[in-house]
Amino acid sequence: MIVVMKEGAREEEVQAVVSLLQGKGLETHLSQGAEKTIIGIIGPKERVLGMPIESMAGVEKVVRVSNPFKLASRAFHPQDTLVQVGPHVVGGANPVIIAGPCSVESREQILEIAHAVKRSGAHMLRGGAFKPRSSPYSFQGLGEEGLKLLAEAREVTGLPVVSEVMDIEALPMMLEYVDVLQIGARNMQNFPLLRAVGKTDKPVLLKRGLSATIEEWLMSAEYILSEGNRNVILCERGIRTFEKYTRNTLDLNAVPVVQYYSHLPVIVDPSHGVGHSRYVLAMARAGIAAGAHGLIVEVHPRPQEALSDGEQSLTLEDFDQMMREVTRVAEAVHGVEAPVYVPGR
Amino acid sequence: MIVVMKEGAREEEVQAVVSLLQGKGLETHLSQGAEKTIIGIIGPKERVLGMPIESMAGVEKVVRVSNPFKLASRAFHPQDTLVQVGPHVVGGANPVIIAGPCSVESREQILEIAHAVKRSGAHMLRGGAFKPRSSPYSFQGLGEEGLKLLAEAREVTGLPVVSEVMDIEALPMMLEYVDVLQIGARNMQNFPLLRAVGKTDKPVLLKRGLSATIEEWLMSAEYILSEGNRNVILCERGIRTFEKYTRNTLDLNAVPVVQYYSHLPVIVDPSHGVGHSRYVLAMARAGIAAGAHGLIVEVHPRPQEALSDGEQSLTLEDFDQMMREVTRVAEAVHGVEAPVYVPGR
Amino acid sequence: MIVVMKEGAREEEVQAVVSLLQGKGLETHLSQGAEKTIIGIIGPKERVLGMPIESMAGVEKVVRVSNPFKLASRAFHPQDTLVQVGPHVVGGANPVIIAGPCSVESREQILEIAHAVKRSGAHMLRGGAFKPRSSPYSFQGLGEEGLKLLAEAREVTGLPVVSEVMDIEALPMMLEYVDVLQIGARNMQNFPLLRAVGKTDKPVLLKRGLSATIEEWLMSAEYILSEGNRNVILCERGIRTFEKYTRNTLDLNAVPVVQYYSHLPVIVDPSHGVGHSRYVLAMARAGIAAGAHGLIVEVHPRPQEALSDGEQSLTLEDFDQMMREVTRVAEAVHGVEAPVYVPGR
Amino acid sequence: MIVVMKEGAREEEVQAVVSLLQGKGLETHLSQGAEKTIIGIIGPKERVLGMPIESMAGVEKVVRVSNPFKLASRAFHPQDTLVQVGPHVVGGANPVIIAGPCSVESREQILEIAHAVKRSGAHMLRGGAFKPRSSPYSFQGLGEEGLKLLAEAREVTGLPVVSEVMDIEALPMMLEYVDVLQIGARNMQNFPLLRAVGKTDKPVLLKRGLSATIEEWLMSAEYILSEGNRNVILCERGIRTFEKYTRNTLDLNAVPVVQYYSHLPVIVDPSHGVGHSRYVLAMARAGIAAGAHGLIVEVHPRPQEALSDGEQSLTLEDFDQMMREVTRVAEAVHGVEAPVYVPGR
Repeated sequence: MIVVMKEGAREEEVQAVVSLLQGKGLETHLSQGAEKTIIGIIGPKERVLGMPIESMAGVEKVVRVSNPFKLASRAFHPQDTLVQVGPHVVGGANPVIIAGPCSVESREQILEIAHAVKRSGAHMLRGGAFKPRSSPYSFQGLGEEGLKLLAEAREVTGLPVVSEVMDIEALPMMLEYVDVLQIGARNMQNFPLLRAVGKTDKPVLLKRGLSATIEEWLMSAEYILSEGNRNVILCERGIRTFEKYTRNTLDLNAVPVVQYYSHLPVIVDPSHGVGHSRYVLAMARAGIAAGAHGLIVEVHPRPQEALSDGEQSLTLEDFDQMMREVTRVAEAVHGVEAPVYVPGR
Repeated sequence: MIVVMKEGAREEEVQAVVSLLQGKGLETHLSQGAEKTIIGIIGPKERVLGMPIESMAGVEKVVRVSNPFKLASRAFHPQDTLVQVGPHVVGGANPVIIAGPCSVESREQILEIAHAVKRSGAHMLRGGAFKPRSSPYSFQGLGEEGLKLLAEAREVTGLPVVSEVMDIEALPMMLEYVDVLQIGARNMQNFPLLRAVGKTDKPVLLKRGLSATIEEWLMSAEYILSEGNRNVILCERGIRTFEKYTRNTLDLNAVPVVQYYSHLPVIVDPSHGVGHSRYVLAMARAGIAAGAHGLIVEVHPRPQEALSDGEQSLTLEDFDQMMREVTRVAEAVHGVEAPVYVPGR
Repeated sequence: MIVVMKEGAREEEVQAVVSLLQGKGLETHLSQGAEKTIIGIIGPKERVLGMPIESMAGVEKVVRVSNPFKLASRAFHPQDTLVQVGPHVVGGANPVIIAGPCSVESREQILEIAHAVKRSGAHMLRGGAFKPRSSPYSFQGLGEEGLKLLAEAREVTGLPVVSEVMDIEALPMMLEYVDVLQIGARNMQNFPLLRAVGKTDKPVLLKRGLSATIEEWLMSAEYILSEGNRNVILCERGIRTFEKYTRNTLDLNAVPVVQYYSHLPVIVDPSHGVGHSRYVLAMARAGIAAGAHGLIVEVHPRPQEALSDGEQSLTLEDFDQMMREVTRVAEAVHGVEAPVYVPGR
Repeated sequence: MIVVMKEGAREEEVQAVVSLLQGKGLETHLSQGAEKTIIGIIGPKERVLGMPIESMAGVEKVVRVSNPFKLASRAFHPQDTLVQVGPHVVGGANPVIIAGPCSVESREQILEIAHAVKRSGAHMLRGGAFKPRSSPYSFQGLGEEGLKLLAEAREVTGLPVVSEVMDIEALPMMLEYVDVLQIGARNMQNFPLLRAVGKTDKPVLLKRGLSATIEEWLMSAEYILSEGNRNVILCERGIRTFEKYTRNTLDLNAVPVVQYYSHLPVIVDPSHGVGHSRYVLAMARAGIAAGAHGLIVEVHPRPQEALSDGEQSLTLEDFDQMMREVTRVAEAVHGVEAPVYVPGR
């Protein structure tokens, strides 16, 4: 960290800052320019996190020069992390496709979808059993019954299943049934929940919060990693912007940025990201072209009858078309001379 | 709700929408204009919430015409709700001031602050025992020890205490010690937690999420109200904007807007709202002038030594000055011919 | 437009709204539901734009049901618009690539770049002669000298040139030298300038404003179209979000959304969109995969010596690599069974 | 500025940066920490503005440590700037109130309003003659005829007049008729226009852009100041946020922040800031309580008949009420021991 003193800061003011820092066991380094004095702080940065140096007399501002995440950083772990889920690897050259309904609605529905997406080439099955809804009066999911149906669908198709965990109480039950624990966007900074999933060894799909910066998202991954669970998959699912023609704004910039700063795999959710099925194919192709390690997509055989998110669900036919399109794009991208990401490039 | 058909939508398309709606037991009302056909839906709106009418052929968009909150709405409860906390009433003409440190740090610290803010005229004491921190490496609060110290400070000063509950596990413990349960900004859409505090009868201070709309905030209040707890106090604490000179942007517009749409009391947190102690007095005065029912303010005897949020904490002297200033502003506002808010105006 | 009356609005209040509207020559259509009364307004919507119906007694809100743009809408002009620039067509199946430096800096620089990007397959040359800079102390461009150098580069390479026009005074001079007039993001709502370029027949590259919605952007296109100039090319160049690791957030969702609502061609600027050269290739590929009609990219032989935007400029080698990658992606996308956009789909 | 090298940056990489900087005549200052090397740059910062040091090998990031504005900064001019407009001073202890219609609509309208707001105590008259409208089909103002009517209203009431200038062409005409030139939010970064008004000595009311940071706003003031015109009044008019219940979000935090960083007077526009007349009184009171040097408010005798912005216009009676309320708040604020702003506090 660097403390920038105001122009004309007095010698005593500079000394007060230096003394405070040294009193905390930090080494300081002074640079005196024509206009300003700068105090570099050398040492474990955590010690200064809570110190209100900016409110001291003569201080203009404090500038952080390191990223706050460690275990999630590429500096700490230069190779790409690969997360194994059943027979599939998330984080390698082959994009992994996760598909399924927003909510598990019935045995027929989930089995029909599971068989269909498997036929089209999907690698995993998604489906919500506990749904975070902004209204207490909306459909909240089938609960444990939904988890059992997911497990049955896995048994008959072989597809690993992904489902959202909303609170710590439900975690033991989720661990019984699912292969990947999803942390939803609204829980990205539910720190007790992050710690709890961090204490398991189950793969975690961590969605980016609606208005979270990439740094905050990686700090949430850090919470999970710091408890010992290294199987974190990041998922970009759209951020809130001023745009009204889309539900959210899928931020594909996050794909190469995450790959630059972190070793964790990153996949893309074009369904929530854009919110209308008519735009999902274009954004799925774009996500793969940007270098994402996979996609998670909402699919429903009859979107008009879906109990939630019907507007953004692909039909089974649209999904099949999507698989063909993204396969061609993936070949185009991975066939070019330069791979999607070269560490250290 | 209203379904707007595209220009040139075919008769069959219109009929398909009407049939779907009527099949769900909804009454429809057709308006045919020169350019467009509009289908009004009459009946409980919840039934259509999950239906993807926008993805049907010929449909341009679906427009919601009612606010989604009910118990939180002024239409449902025209009079201002008053929340009793110990001897104080939140929601009436007299602003209620809550003050204290970001975190409880030690017995000496919390007692010194409690005595001082009481002397200056504060009505309640705040202090965090469980802290949501974006880094897992930052100070996370003293836990139950902090709650005990708050209870001791209450005993010696008579000030009711406010503290944040971060998860359902900790709720029974919190209920023992605190007078007001705070739900933090990051948990505004932690729906299981909202339901859990809704099942108690303890007053709840519900902070607005970092990027939440006022509608979403009122829907989170609706979660609490719908479980039976009517003692909800809203707290505006700053939203995320592009501005870098402030930590957040305190949105004082929310004060009259909430008072227009809802009967719930609304207070203002200028400390988190603006994030630098040098701006807190101005925003505290402005909050009261906007008609807020109270303030919650961070105070620390030695901000430079605070373990968290030192930058935005007022000294004891600054707080005393703030109390004198906001008292004069409150008199000016409540003395004018038009009171701060006239229901139905 | 639809006027939604409050629950319990009185008959006189409904009549007052109806009378006001009918007094302006508008036909109204009343729907009375169990809870609310709705007044549909049939007739040219412009007449009600300035009327503050929302402030009338008993009115809850006014809902607009049509998009405000006309000439820019796909309903008005179902086929894709093709804009001819020299020998190239913008808006068809073949993406058009525009490349060049942020600013024209010298004769050597612009000629070296023009020759190089042509060799790599670019279709047009970009270069700023008048630069909008947030600081009055930054390099503001070479002015007319820069335009002359662009014209010379066109002469020797055959590449049409694109350059930004910042004010009406400079327009006659720009018309002499350039093939495409660029309207920068900061001028997207400079309405007198939009009208002025609308009075010419020169192709206009209209960049999206930093925080503009797609609707506002299309309304700015409408300003140009309404003056008679149909040669408008839209350019997505990144919007402002909370993200700090990128300069802007390239919003690729805008590509299929614009293609749904409008017939105008839309290209993508990954250089400004993401702001760091290390992410430009990924976003260029993604833009083409999303279905963009072209790219505009900043290129500099020695980015470290660029007078502006060096951070986001590709080297000549990187640009050559980009061309190979986007060509493969374009083939993958346009070769699939479903083309990028099917009108009316 | 400070260049932060990556952990493990090689000696040659550090030297390459140092050499580049020294080659531009800048003095550098090296700090080597345990983890990172930092290069402080001492000397006129403009020289490095265009240099893409961040894209050099081994560089992690470049951190700016000074604010980019100079003439607008309080460091440059510690005393508050006072702008004289006719008999009134903007920037002193007494708030200056500017009131009038959104648009000048007719002789009767502007004279009726001018007389009424003067009676209630307003100091200046506002009124638009050239209107920036997002639709080319909306009312665009009366043009020069509107300016003449404003001048007539000034003659009969003595109120100085404020009106918006939209382009350089119209500037000479504006200078003849108006006392304060308003630069609208959409033109905050219309740099040629800023330079043009900077070359006059007419007071300029510079509105903050819809999504502008305070730093960008002060840089736009810098454009005007750098041409020689020191009579700049800043006007906070609401920023764009995700909130839908208000038209914009009036950012009152900007008032103390501007007063901290700059010497220029800052006033508040609650009408555009919140967009509904029912919230304007609360926000007007709050603006004065925050320490604003004045208000600019839209007033119309019959808002339902206004040709623009009727929804946010106060009636003449509401405005009279507002004047009484803000006067009491102003007395409360300026009567307290601590004045609204103490330079250097």
